[in-house]
Amino acid sequence: MSQGSTNPSEFFARHRDTLKEAVAAVHGRYHWSPYPESPSPKVYGPEAGPEGQAAFERYLGADFPLDQPGGGDRVVTERSPYGIALGTGYPHADVDTLLSAATAALPRWRDAGAEVRAGVCLEILHRLNRRSFEIAHAVQHTSGQAFVMAFQAGGPQAQDRGLEAVAYGYDLIARYAGAVRWEKPQRKGDPLVLQKRFHAVPRGVALVIGCNTFPTWNSYPGLFASLVTGNPVIVKPHPRAVLPLAITVAVAREVLAEAGYDPDTVLLAAEQPDERLAATLAVRPEVRIIDYTGSTEFGDWLERNAPQAFVNTEKAGVNPVVIDSTDDYAGMLGNLAFSLSLYSGQMCTTPQNIFVPRAGITTDEGHRSVEQVGADLAAAVDRLLGDTARATGVLGAIANDAVLARLEEAGGLGEVLLASRSVAHPDFAGATVRTPAIIRVGADRRDVYGREHFGPIAFLVPAADTGDALRLLRETVSERGALTAAVYTREADVLTAAERAALDAGVHLSANLTGQVFVNQSAAFSDYHGTGANPAATAALTDPRFVAGRFTFVQSRRPA
Amino acid sequence: MSQGSTNPSEFFARHRDTLKEAVAAVHGRYHWSPYPESPSPKVYGPEAGPEGQAAFERYLGADFPLDQPGGGDRVVTERSPYGIALGTGYPHADVDTLLSAATAALPRWRDAGAEVRAGVCLEILHRLNRRSFEIAHAVQHTSGQAFVMAFQAGGPQAQDRGLEAVAYGYDLIARYAGAVRWEKPQRKGDPLVLQKRFHAVPRGVALVIGCNTFPTWNSYPGLFASLVTGNPVIVKPHPRAVLPLAITVAVAREVLAEAGYDPDTVLLAAEQPDERLAATLAVRPEVRIIDYTGSTEFGDWLERNAPQAFVNTEKAGVNPVVIDSTDDYAGMLGNLAFSLSLYSGQMCTTPQNIFVPRAGITTDEGHRSVEQVGADLAAAVDRLLGDTARATGVLGAIANDAVLARLEEAGGLGEVLLASRSVAHPDFAGATVRTPAIIRVGADRRDVYGREHFGPIAFLVPAADTGDALRLLRETVSERGALTAAVYTREADVLTAAERAALDAGVHLSANLTGQVFVNQSAAFSDYHGTGANPAATAALTDPRFVAGRFTFVQSRRPA
Repeated sequence: MSQGSTNPSEFFARHRDTLKEAVAAVHGRYHWSPYPESPSPKVYGPEAGPEGQAAFERYLGADFPLDQPGGGDRVVTERSPYGIALGTGYPHADVDTLLSAATAALPRWRDAGAEVRAGVCLEILHRLNRRSFEIAHAVQHTSGQAFVMAFQAGGPQAQDRGLEAVAYGYDLIARYAGAVRWEKPQRKGDPLVLQKRFHAVPRGVALVIGCNTFPTWNSYPGLFASLVTGNPVIVKPHPRAVLPLAITVAVAREVLAEAGYDPDTVLLAAEQPDERLAATLAVRPEVRIIDYTGSTEFGDWLERNAPQAFVNTEKAGVNPVVIDSTDDYAGMLGNLAFSLSLYSGQMCTTPQNIFVPRAGITTDEGHRSVEQVGADLAAAVDRLLGDTARATGVLGAIANDAVLARLEEAGGLGEVLLASRSVAHPDFAGATVRTPAIIRVGADRRDVYGREHFGPIAFLVPAADTGDALRLLRETVSERGALTAAVYTREADVLTAAERAALDAGVHLSANLTGQVFVNQSAAFSDYHGTGANPAATAALTDPRFVAGRFTFVQSRRPA
Repeated sequence: MSQGSTNPSEFFARHRDTLKEAVAAVHGRYHWSPYPESPSPKVYGPEAGPEGQAAFERYLGADFPLDQPGGGDRVVTERSPYGIALGTGYPHADVDTLLSAATAALPRWRDAGAEVRAGVCLEILHRLNRRSFEIAHAVQHTSGQAFVMAFQAGGPQAQDRGLEAVAYGYDLIARYAGAVRWEKPQRKGDPLVLQKRFHAVPRGVALVIGCNTFPTWNSYPGLFASLVTGNPVIVKPHPRAVLPLAITVAVAREVLAEAGYDPDTVLLAAEQPDERLAATLAVRPEVRIIDYTGSTEFGDWLERNAPQAFVNTEKAGVNPVVIDSTDDYAGMLGNLAFSLSLYSGQMCTTPQNIFVPRAGITTDEGHRSVEQVGADLAAAVDRLLGDTARATGVLGAIANDAVLARLEEAGGLGEVLLASRSVAHPDFAGATVRTPAIIRVGADRRDVYGREHFGPIAFLVPAADTGDALRLLRETVSERGALTAAVYTREADVLTAAERAALDAGVHLSANLTGQVFVNQSAAFSDYHGTGANPAATAALTDPRFVAGRFTFVQSRRPA
């Protein structure tokens, strides 16, 4: 074990106030963040942008500098949705080497205690924050997100989610006494007195399985929740989105080593595209925690085939919107147009199904038929994306060929209200940029809108009336899951009914969003992401369940 | 839904202080209990004893008064280990009726909120406490526990564990804000402001599968943890120990109805002995939580075959004791003799394997060889159980024929240091009372001591030395699980090594118990029962994990 250059409790002392504020925020659920989301030179300094870009470019066509056990050969698997070649090589460790290194790291990390572990985690997050520009380029050129979104969602907002997980984990350990003198009075004579100590013991080796579209945001909650509760973590990135997690793992290993802990407490498991490394790792007895974002098929497989592990999955869903009425028709259209367009609809939180009463809706601009709502929404999307620079800033690029193929076939699913079109990117000639498609289908076509069409594909579905639309919301979410739901109404009783439907279906509801808050965005420390109460996810990022399954208390008692 | 006679928030107001103290105790982990454990007339009043006995006798040979859906025919399945006939009949509801009744009860119970639910739970516990004598007779004549133990472990101590679960559940919901005004500052203009509400949503129908030996103590944590977090509960008792849980269910239904909630929030699922009702219920999609105490075989089956559910199991284990040295040889022998004898060793926490260095041990009475330790321990057991009245008060009766058969064959497993003998019970001629057997086997006979021999069967196993004994502790616990471990030593470094071994194996350790605290007893609010970190159990009663898996937060947000 290398002797660290930093007293491990120094990191805790340095970040104690931030941790304290984070714990208060997860309890109070108000707005809070220590990591500024603006990629402005005024915030991050004038050098941060150019340095981040230079750091990113040094990775291109090179071996990623990661010193971990057993990385003999290299894997090169990434291709930017913007057309540039990445060509970065990552160590290709074998499963036994990874698992034995992680297992060996466990006892010292466990024995470090919650304070030291929280300090190390906060220092990792702090250094990741300082490298947000570098990470933003890495996220952009793996996920296809536009740069500003890649910075915000891949940098500070992902770091927020990581810190939130640390706060939950630290809090769920530290709030219970670590030691106590137990005195039980006796009817006669002296009390019985025992000295008791309680240790938080990690569950075991944790496996984080990353996704293509949000490599950091979706991985940090599991990564940091496992770390702070004492579990070594093997990070298995999506083969098309390795770089952002390779940087993350490298930073974690650097901080661990400085603090005198085994850097193998965090390991990277890069793989060839068809290696099925996640499945191989998931069923190993050493792997006791799994955090996964991806397809329903593999998520369900993990839930059934890894009974030894605490399994958290985020899978497909069919996010609904119910439009009953609105006091701000233009605001509603603009808000929905942005939600459908942001990152080309490639968010697990993007609305897919827009249910509208067949008789139309009441608005501040008068009655609107279903046809008008469809046409007006299509026009709002066109308006938003009319300017090419703004369009590419909103849309980003299509992450992979599967999304593209789905989009190209979407026209055949119903009546096309808005056709998808290509946009030429001003900076990246090879970028694959597409605008959203809006398709009208009947309420009887549950076979179409009742399953996920991941990407920029939305359905307008006329319902018999608002009650029927809420029934469709409830049923589709209960059957196929959803991470978000939205409703527009100016009727108090409809809002109540919508909240009831969302509660029954177990999905988070946003009502009457017309301004600069969007249904597909959630704020760490305040908004929960996922619920575990519908088929789209087993977990909420982050709630007590997500963290409490990662450790247990083991006690020792003796007469005092 | 019946209109209740009590304002539901009245129960919360009535028990608010108790709940507050319970929440403080689970955090502080000091000694605390609101339910007196002494069955004294001075504590419970002079009438409580006779009334409890009369209430118990009214159940004999009669239909248990339980008004729940679909109880057409009756099942009669209990036989007292003390030889008396119970003959109590219970409704034999079918699975679909139970599940649809429980499912229908969920929304109103969910919407009651954590405060009302906690109030109802505390009122149920309060009424159970007042009926502790009645429950004690029911526990005695189903489990075979002696009366005082049945009173303490089946009454107040079980109620403590129930209250502990309520405190954890209430606390894990109430500590997170139920509503917040979220204000996010903008660089230009007014802040973004949302009004957010957060609802704790239960996971679904919960199934509690009771055991023969501790029908209330092992069931109350799951029952009350599920209830307070909003889940309706179906209680499936062991066919030989129905009455204590039937009383519990009846009390719960009475309080629910008084508070205006659906009594079907708690249901009894009595069955014929070979019906396998637990397995049928466990795989139903409506069942989303399972709490189980019993065999490893069925526990493992549940963990693998009910992936839709949050499964908590407590299974078999091989509880170890390592004797290195002692400053109080007589106290150690007396303490161990009591631990082996209490309830005829039919506790999941009773020591089974006593590892002693082959060269013997150092004591305050001088050196003792392995042979002497074995003989002295056998003599201590004989001394403890020499008086028949005291013997039956400690031993209770053998719960069922499987334990008896195991005990009768134990002599063939090794060298008999102490043979089991029958004891005639002064009050119950038909009681099956047996003293413990102590068998010496070699450390190479892992095939014998490496598996559980549930009942009054202990093994003395000579080890090469103390380090080897600790290795055996670590290995047997890691392989087969344990709920308790104990060590006797006067060496600080041995104590440290024992704590390390217990931590690695994930088992609670008791050191140097020589007085009136016993390794097989755990105190609610302070001691954890089980860890989830070794094969004996997936859960600790009660820790954050045990409760947090039973609910999730669902939010609703809108512009303020």
